[in-house]
Amino acid sequence: MGESLGDVGEFALIERVTEPLLQGPGVLLGPGDDAAVLRTPDGRVVATTDLLVEGRHFRLDWSTPYDVGRKAAAQSLADVAAMGGVATALLVGLAAPASLPVAVAEGLMAGLAFEAARVGASVVGGDVVAADALMLAVTALGDLEGREPVPRCAAFVGDVLVVVGTLGGSAAGLAALRAGRGDLDVVAAHRVPSPPYDAGPALADCRANAMIDVSDGLSGDLAHLLSYGIGFEVEVGALPRHPGLAAAAEALGEDPLAWVLAGGEDHALVAALPPDGVEEARAACAEWPFAVVGRVVAGEGIRWLGAEDVPASFDHFEATP
Amino acid sequence: MGESLGDVGEFALIERVTEPLLQGPGVLLGPGDDAAVLRTPDGRVVATTDLLVEGRHFRLDWSTPYDVGRKAAAQSLADVAAMGGVATALLVGLAAPASLPVAVAEGLMAGLAFEAARVGASVVGGDVVAADALMLAVTALGDLEGREPVPRCAAFVGDVLVVVGTLGGSAAGLAALRAGRGDLDVVAAHRVPSPPYDAGPALADCRANAMIDVSDGLSGDLAHLLSYGIGFEVEVGALPRHPGLAAAAEALGEDPLAWVLAGGEDHALVAALPPDGVEEARAACAEWPFAVVGRVVAGEGIRWLGAEDVPASFDHFEATP
Repeated sequence: MGESLGDVGEFALIERVTEPLLQGPGVLLGPGDDAAVLRTPDGRVVATTDLLVEGRHFRLDWSTPYDVGRKAAAQSLADVAAMGGVATALLVGLAAPASLPVAVAEGLMAGLAFEAARVGASVVGGDVVAADALMLAVTALGDLEGREPVPRCAAFVGDVLVVVGTLGGSAAGLAALRAGRGDLDVVAAHRVPSPPYDAGPALADCRANAMIDVSDGLSGDLAHLLSYGIGFEVEVGALPRHPGLAAAAEALGEDPLAWVLAGGEDHALVAALPPDGVEEARAACAEWPFAVVGRVVAGEGIRWLGAEDVPASFDHFEATP
Repeated sequence: MGESLGDVGEFALIERVTEPLLQGPGVLLGPGDDAAVLRTPDGRVVATTDLLVEGRHFRLDWSTPYDVGRKAAAQSLADVAAMGGVATALLVGLAAPASLPVAVAEGLMAGLAFEAARVGASVVGGDVVAADALMLAVTALGDLEGREPVPRCAAFVGDVLVVVGTLGGSAAGLAALRAGRGDLDVVAAHRVPSPPYDAGPALADCRANAMIDVSDGLSGDLAHLLSYGIGFEVEVGALPRHPGLAAAAEALGEDPLAWVLAGGEDHALVAALPPDGVEEARAACAEWPFAVVGRVVAGEGIRWLGAEDVPASFDHFEATP
């Protein structure tokens, strides 16, 4: 695998991984200083951090470093979209053993930069430290472009619940990899999710009252949208499934509904829209799968219409891949 | 040690560590959503990320969780100061084993929040994941308040080099802890650094052309201020030493100069000022140790006047505590 991080040392490594990075027009000062400086023309900034740990969030025998980088970026970029923002920058912390091949670090950074560039964001800075295990800490910053941020807990009774993107693909892909079926289509969805980034600002423009991206699983993430005095009715049959799910379920002999209801890391967006905003939203999100999946009602909790048992979502201290 | 992270689970843990957090007036949306939203009245934001790994950057048998949290915050807050900015927010990623006592996580967060509050910043968000080792990923955001950011590589020939704060305390404290001399004064400097946060914006206001905080050791960090065609002459005898250094050197039988020249994590600020800005800067930084330590000359490299051998700074892939 060629040179290791220990061979080249911290500062040469930083030079090698930051040298190829392109900086967008909003970046006033990019990598290589004490801190980066970005324009925030809106007068506000959206900010979110996520960690990914090797062996828990990814495995390098199942994904290339480039794919892991893309997935790591997608997780934070989707959080910005779920606020109604457009991501502008990533900061990347890399903790890695000195024995890690430099090529792996370069692949991770290339994947991060590629995924960021898909939404017009730049990798503007970060940190590199030695550690026993490989870990990525990704911070995304974003711009609201004058929109109000869309929080989690502000759905109204009468709102319509919509999902943009699909569910279950990443969980099904993980099940396929565990079963040694790396040939199944869903594996690609596990390696690199496809969050509907631009649907976040679009749904905000269509007056979404509440929004979240599905990162830990729909059943748990939807619960984060609940607030006092409101409940949700969800038509389980209306939930948009990843197109590879049926084939994966048949090949693996598993029930795809568990993947749809509790599978994380697809980063589909769930939003509560006023009824008269739904058709406008459907048109604005035309390039993505768009499904009306339920409604916001007076009451409490979530009623899953058409399903008996709803499995729990991912808890970082209970489960590993 | 009471309950562990695995006992309470991810979401209860997040509630417990975020519930005590106070949010400043610049925070439009704090912890608990997909992302935080902050005001950036200047139209720009300063952003920096640092990682700290247990066993490499801190040891919980040498420092309390509260002190580790303060030190973790200080590292990123000092980077914002070194750009001439005032920190406004921290995002905190915590990777920890499920067996970690909740009290440790609470102590870390309390220390982070305390150190942030010293400069008026708030802990606005973060992430918690399971991992084999304890690790913190701290992102600091800051406001330039109309100032131009002060980069590393823009010193002019004729500028005066100044250091605000002191050097060597953290390295001497680490040496004391390694030698089982936790009774020495310098140990406090290792556990919690005292970066001269407000000196950063003050030096920027006094027209500093270049600035950095000493995080890896003066000899290496000063080299980051070099640019094409310029060199530095540094009077080693003028470098401001932590007041506990002489006693620690005598007690441990070590040469304090190595701590001064190559010791990291004190986060003193080094700046290149135009000569007519020095007295104004001295007055503006009156509450901190302030020393004129050298000058910027035509040439290249660093001449250390009054020292024979200058030890190398910290490389994350070569050294561990």
